[in-house]
Amino acid sequence: MQALTDYKGEKSCCVHLNKKMEVVCLPALSRVAVCGGTHGNELSGVYLVRERLKKKEEVETISVVTVMSNPRAVQLCRRYSETDLNRCFTAATLSSPISDETPYEIVRAQELNALLGPKGSDEATDLICDLHNTTANMGLCLITYSDCDWICLHICKYLQKEMPSVPVRYIHFDISISEAYSLESVGKHGFAIEIGPQPHGVVRADIFNMMKEGVRLVLAWIHHFNSGIQFEGGVVDVFTMVKNIDYPRDPETRSITAAIHPQLQDRDFCLLHTGDPLFLTFSGETETYKGEEPLYPFFVNECAYYEKGIALSLARRKRVEIPSIQVKRD
Amino acid sequence: MQALTDYKGEKSCCVHLNKKMEVVCLPALSRVAVCGGTHGNELSGVYLVRERLKKKEEVETISVVTVMSNPRAVQLCRRYSETDLNRCFTAATLSSPISDETPYEIVRAQELNALLGPKGSDEATDLICDLHNTTANMGLCLITYSDCDWICLHICKYLQKEMPSVPVRYIHFDISISEAYSLESVGKHGFAIEIGPQPHGVVRADIFNMMKEGVRLVLAWIHHFNSGIQFEGGVVDVFTMVKNIDYPRDPETRSITAAIHPQLQDRDFCLLHTGDPLFLTFSGETETYKGEEPLYPFFVNECAYYEKGIALSLARRKRVEIPSIQVKRD
Repeated sequence: MQALTDYKGEKSCCVHLNKKMEVVCLPALSRVAVCGGTHGNELSGVYLVRERLKKKEEVETISVVTVMSNPRAVQLCRRYSETDLNRCFTAATLSSPISDETPYEIVRAQELNALLGPKGSDEATDLICDLHNTTANMGLCLITYSDCDWICLHICKYLQKEMPSVPVRYIHFDISISEAYSLESVGKHGFAIEIGPQPHGVVRADIFNMMKEGVRLVLAWIHHFNSGIQFEGGVVDVFTMVKNIDYPRDPETRSITAAIHPQLQDRDFCLLHTGDPLFLTFSGETETYKGEEPLYPFFVNECAYYEKGIALSLARRKRVEIPSIQVKRD
Repeated sequence: MQALTDYKGEKSCCVHLNKKMEVVCLPALSRVAVCGGTHGNELSGVYLVRERLKKKEEVETISVVTVMSNPRAVQLCRRYSETDLNRCFTAATLSSPISDETPYEIVRAQELNALLGPKGSDEATDLICDLHNTTANMGLCLITYSDCDWICLHICKYLQKEMPSVPVRYIHFDISISEAYSLESVGKHGFAIEIGPQPHGVVRADIFNMMKEGVRLVLAWIHHFNSGIQFEGGVVDVFTMVKNIDYPRDPETRSITAAIHPQLQDRDFCLLHTGDPLFLTFSGETETYKGEEPLYPFFVNECAYYEKGIALSLARRKRVEIPSIQVKRD
């Protein structure tokens, strides 16, 4: 039997582990939440949560809670009713006082924090998986706030192996947990499962099935992990968010004056080099990428980000070595 | 020179013309309207109209007016603010009294009728082209209320020839002009240009360019026609709407319980036979097409039709012979 050590991943030692890696022991993931409808018009998650609430399938070794995060937005079939729920989970917003004028989504964020958190506490849910769709051609992405969360990275590696026909990627937003604004940050571990392309307000069977299979595999992995199976180490490519690029806009009206260039549209995660086409203006001119560093585009032409001033995001890729892991025995 | 007759297309003689067809003479199309933003989140039309309003390109022989149909919905980036504008152009709604409680879109429909109509009158705009997008994989469709409007059918034939890389089709709703509910019914001739797939709230350069080129060709055809060029007759396939099919729904909550089947998704205008897969329920069962007559699906999984109870529409195809046409000299 290999030597087991209690390993606390620290940033400096995340990327390059010692050649001779030991097995890292981590606590069991007993309490898991599967959330959908955090954005009310991202319908794969909405219908998957409805289906799970109807059928209540049990998974041995895990207590799974299924949550419709924003029922009011689901009812309206809109992203949100007053403000974007998935920007309300910072420490500041979760502790802000509530009055009659407080937007519904801030109240709801505090309810969800009471149900699944409190964020940052020992009582928090062990793992939160929050279901999202995008109009961008991103395949299946796990979106996280850590590049050294071995649980999330191992789950990503497992999905990559078990879903060979789907491009599965790991996106990392380098933001402190206190500043982290999205629902999954309430759990001890957590990620958004972001799947596209699917128009908001539409459910496509292919995308729905991809999400259903993804969630089934996440729960299967957690069950195997809790049962004592050792998962071998390896490498995972991590895409760390670097910056956003906005659309060209009319200086007066702020209306956009160009669309994503046809050569970039649908090519999320294809390396973008200086001089590559970025936008095609509505009058027909091409605008190119001026950045010096080649970077990986993602969230290319995401519907909900027009209002946020984001035409695409850019990431740097790095290869992260992950250790073998196993559940810590009591 | 061929004998020219003043031909008034009547239903009975639309489909099978005499073998030896004469050239039909029709009045010039002097006043044309290009409208967009009738649905505020169908963005190709919104940005094309904005572009046209900025540039004001002139076309000889035609007075073209460019209209943003529903500015309030465009501002909200929603289909409509209170009720679907493109269901407000029936004779009844256009003549209904206005009060403080009248929905914005009914007021706006009456404004547009004053600007571009009045519907059914001699003063009406000669041709209205209204720009729409769909999430369905429909290519470029002209949608009309007539299967014997030689102008619309000739424009369709012209687009089919001039845009060989785009599937161009002609859809016919068999509804009387008085009952016809959409904006283009206000003109003497008219059609919606419906292009997809594009998510609502998103503009894709490929779809935008297809629409831009379509509108350019429509205006070019009208200019050629007004200039006296004779257009040779031929045949056009017309898809006449037969019926709509709704999603399977939970009898209590009315929530949908299935998505369009993956084998039907994106296959608009591919003939559907008895027993072909129609839906895949969220729990994994296939539901098949029970109709006895093979029909052509269109508007398959259109986002805006979930609330209207339409998962797809079905059409019968017929081949319509169209005569040669030429402008009537004064």
